[in-house]
Amino acid sequence: MTDKTVSIDIKKDLFGANEEAAAITADIFKKHGIRSVDIMGSVGTGKTELIEGLCEILSKKYRILMLAGDLATTIDADRVASHGVDTVQINTRTACHLDARMIQLALKDVDLSKYQLVFIENVGNLICPAGYSLGVEKKIVVVSITEGPYMIRKHPLTIKRSDMVVINKIDLAEVLSFDVDALVSDIREVDERLPVFKVSAKTGIGLTELVDALGL
Amino acid sequence: MTDKTVSIDIKKDLFGANEEAAAITADIFKKHGIRSVDIMGSVGTGKTELIEGLCEILSKKYRILMLAGDLATTIDADRVASHGVDTVQINTRTACHLDARMIQLALKDVDLSKYQLVFIENVGNLICPAGYSLGVEKKIVVVSITEGPYMIRKHPLTIKRSDMVVINKIDLAEVLSFDVDALVSDIREVDERLPVFKVSAKTGIGLTELVDALGL
Repeated sequence: MTDKTVSIDIKKDLFGANEEAAAITADIFKKHGIRSVDIMGSVGTGKTELIEGLCEILSKKYRILMLAGDLATTIDADRVASHGVDTVQINTRTACHLDARMIQLALKDVDLSKYQLVFIENVGNLICPAGYSLGVEKKIVVVSITEGPYMIRKHPLTIKRSDMVVINKIDLAEVLSFDVDALVSDIREVDERLPVFKVSAKTGIGLTELVDALGL
Repeated sequence: MTDKTVSIDIKKDLFGANEEAAAITADIFKKHGIRSVDIMGSVGTGKTELIEGLCEILSKKYRILMLAGDLATTIDADRVASHGVDTVQINTRTACHLDARMIQLALKDVDLSKYQLVFIENVGNLICPAGYSLGVEKKIVVVSITEGPYMIRKHPLTIKRSDMVVINKIDLAEVLSFDVDALVSDIREVDERLPVFKVSAKTGIGLTELVDALGL
């Protein structure tokens, strides 16, 4: 190292800046009395279908805004918009997760006084989104029984960083001979008290229990 | 910026170092006459089951080494080892992909003269592993019809950076009413000539075609 070289702690710098931005968003949501939920999970676990189901139940009670994170396309935002919900699509291009600054940018031109509830659908990825606070009240991780039996044991940090787990596509458990109890045991190994919901976003199973647990 | 501050291009630095390490691994494989394949894809798409199926076919012809990348556990390496194949588990802890230096580290104490074929199973993630060369001959991306219909359109860069696409769990297409032709069309939109294989790693459908295409 020469005296011209300055060493920087990249990880601390990046995460520190994110936490600051997240805290600002949290304050803005609080000021407007907005409830907020970040929904993360791997590709195709049914995050969009879950948000669609929740919007069907909640759109009479709340004015909802949905932010959709994807590398490309507006497919997810379009699907949720078809339920009469306002949406903003965030295309991350190459980024594997949403961060708090992207949320700030997406909300910059939004009149937040119009909304009472914000759903954020994170980029489809069971790893990276767990490390980034977005300034929301609750972080839900969605896993699907079509992902096979090991996704919990392989991703304990993601589970630890979540406030709730949704096991989705529960309607396929029988045809896929999937042991749901074993999956719940794996979650219990990581966190004894983490709320777990057995859901089929497609058929509606378990959605009202999830809404109740969110206090919505 | 003060005259004590040096600006560094983090992205270029990281990716440049990775390319250098990958080139060294490629040379080492070449020197030993080792064929090599990197298999990437999201959580639960059946990467391990695919490697198990390929090992069943190929272990009479080649001495195989399998490197398994996961944040935690040795589940995947143990499964492949049960087929009489030597394995090395790489636990990345928090890292969302394998990189070329992890592969170098994993191979450091391995006697490569013992092997003729290396399979690398990347961390379960459809985004990040695509950006990192590992010094292998072919990069295969595995998608599964249980991931829903949009994973190709949402991840064009991953498809572009792959040498082949395996559409796995093809045996479930009927029960899930999945339109496989539409998925192939999505791949064709990104790359007209990319080899695509319809596979069920579970039942063995399509495996010999994949082996032939790999020239193994």
